[in-house]
Amino acid sequence: MLKVGILGGGQLGRMLLQTAANYPVETHVLENDDECPAAHLCRYFIKGNIRDYETVYHFGKGLDAVTIEIENVNLEALERLEAEGVKVFPKPSVLRIIKNKVRQKEYYLEHGIPTAEFAIITNKNEIGQLPHLLPAVQKLAEGGYDGRGVQVIDNLSDSHLFFDEHSVLEKKIKIKKEIAQIVAVDQLGKTALYPPVEMMFNKDLNQLDFQLCPADIPQQVLWKVEAIALTVVRNFNSPGLFAVELFVDENNEVFVNETAPRVHNSGHHTIEAHYSSQFDMLWRIILGYPLGNTKYLFPSIMVNIIGGEGHSGKAKYIGLNEVLKIDNAFVHIYGKAETRPGRKMGHVTIISNEKQDLIHKANKIRQTINVVS
Amino acid sequence: MLKVGILGGGQLGRMLLQTAANYPVETHVLENDDECPAAHLCRYFIKGNIRDYETVYHFGKGLDAVTIEIENVNLEALERLEAEGVKVFPKPSVLRIIKNKVRQKEYYLEHGIPTAEFAIITNKNEIGQLPHLLPAVQKLAEGGYDGRGVQVIDNLSDSHLFFDEHSVLEKKIKIKKEIAQIVAVDQLGKTALYPPVEMMFNKDLNQLDFQLCPADIPQQVLWKVEAIALTVVRNFNSPGLFAVELFVDENNEVFVNETAPRVHNSGHHTIEAHYSSQFDMLWRIILGYPLGNTKYLFPSIMVNIIGGEGHSGKAKYIGLNEVLKIDNAFVHIYGKAETRPGRKMGHVTIISNEKQDLIHKANKIRQTINVVS
Repeated sequence: MLKVGILGGGQLGRMLLQTAANYPVETHVLENDDECPAAHLCRYFIKGNIRDYETVYHFGKGLDAVTIEIENVNLEALERLEAEGVKVFPKPSVLRIIKNKVRQKEYYLEHGIPTAEFAIITNKNEIGQLPHLLPAVQKLAEGGYDGRGVQVIDNLSDSHLFFDEHSVLEKKIKIKKEIAQIVAVDQLGKTALYPPVEMMFNKDLNQLDFQLCPADIPQQVLWKVEAIALTVVRNFNSPGLFAVELFVDENNEVFVNETAPRVHNSGHHTIEAHYSSQFDMLWRIILGYPLGNTKYLFPSIMVNIIGGEGHSGKAKYIGLNEVLKIDNAFVHIYGKAETRPGRKMGHVTIISNEKQDLIHKANKIRQTINVVS
Repeated sequence: MLKVGILGGGQLGRMLLQTAANYPVETHVLENDDECPAAHLCRYFIKGNIRDYETVYHFGKGLDAVTIEIENVNLEALERLEAEGVKVFPKPSVLRIIKNKVRQKEYYLEHGIPTAEFAIITNKNEIGQLPHLLPAVQKLAEGGYDGRGVQVIDNLSDSHLFFDEHSVLEKKIKIKKEIAQIVAVDQLGKTALYPPVEMMFNKDLNQLDFQLCPADIPQQVLWKVEAIALTVVRNFNSPGLFAVELFVDENNEVFVNETAPRVHNSGHHTIEAHYSSQFDMLWRIILGYPLGNTKYLFPSIMVNIIGGEGHSGKAKYIGLNEVLKIDNAFVHIYGKAETRPGRKMGHVTIISNEKQDLIHKANKIRQTINVVS
């Protein structure tokens, strides 16, 4: 039985472990918090810092393979483990590209992958010399995570707010649609694509409302999305599961935004709506099994369950009973003891052949469920 | 967060725990073997004998609820726990009826539930006075499990083999079909029925080959199956999940064979083929949520993966890669370290709108996969 370690113990780890129980595999998890969502669903839980070299090295040493559920892990330890024969999904060389936003942009450029026009800057004074990129998005090269380290610059008047560090200044695209394309790559380099999903935003709150699968895009846009995502992933030369986030502009041009080299929020619907879920697929890749079937059984919408504003502390789920009455909805609560505003506490997937039914139920769920303390 | 205990740590416990991770619940498992399939998927694992009074009592004391994945548990401890306010699914009064095959038969008789004609005997000499029941099935009142304690008596010539104990002598029915009907009962007594499944036997080997869902039976037989199963379950006056096994004879008459008051082998296909699986449904019942949707997404067949004849020891799965190539198959390996002839080591569910595709794939899987040591 192969021994496989996961760096990180959040909800992605939790769902990986729910699926791991379908296969002969010995699971190990490394995470600082021994009440994290993945702590009690694995064979061996090791409490420790996934960013610490010695901790990650000793965790991985003796395992057959290691994967991640978050990018922010100790890369040097993974490189040493790989050199010593532990399989790492994705390869550390991919993480090195993706962890640094400057390096990631350069990678897209090197491989002719369309991405928003940008400049690399080292201090905020350079922004004044790049008026043609405004309005722009400024992204710190390192250390940004979950919305931090990213800001919009509309004009030069708020210059005291600009990041004064190594960063990417990226021209804002007039986005018509945001798409995520999940690509699986097995150990022989064989690939499989899921149908892309479409992010549906609440325009007033600038908040992700739902993810619709399959994305409602014309055939030509689908081809571009698939071709671009494949180009991104193939040049990594690494097995693993990858979520490529893309923008479609008003001219139906497609640009890569960024790539996550792991299971991803945009693939949660695959648990119930597809033959092989993204979690099932990653186990198939790691364990050397054939790739799974990426087709959907039904179109779906996924709604995140988010910690309510103004509530921090022990989580309570208001409206859960009402949501559980919905005939075609599947509820996932991640088992986080504490809620915080904006924290991902769970998700609901709805499946239906009727798009209007999906959107109607998704709206109902958003209005019904509330995580409070 | 409710604290819920499971007595038994086999594959049913494992699949219960895979699903429990979708809900806010603190899980506890009691089982003698700390490498059992459910040992590493729960919050608290307690090593101990589920048939021992003190062990079961101390396991359950302090929990909000207890359920079972096997009937052969200490009943007196559950009765005391129930008296002290722990919710037990199913109620111990149901287990008392079901654990004893004589009592179970009497229960069917008391409630006018059709079941094969029978006599209760206390020694083997009585069989000679009951020629009208032959050919018959003799079932020990207590202690039978998984095929043990049950035998067919065709005539009186093999009398030295008859059980000389308290047992049921049941006239053999000319079976056209074997059906299982799963019924869910919530804490308010509300019920939900899954579509019944049909057991498909290999006539040569007298071995269960597949389970087909929905069963291929005429509407009138379906109505009888549902009505009889509901009568069986309603008179238990207990919340829980119940699998009622029934025979359909050549005249389309329907008879109850026996009832399992728990999640059951005949409901495995519900994981992928139905909105709410039997495991999801039991959690909904225990946690006081609304009952789930029992409808199927697709017709399905379930194939058990059984330990091969002549193989005892560390399990190896021959042909697993081939099975994982099948586009519409879902594989579950139970994580049992050791295989034995006939041991349930896993299962595969196939979903399809085409019955012939289901049967074709099921045959292919049976021919392909082999558990050896």
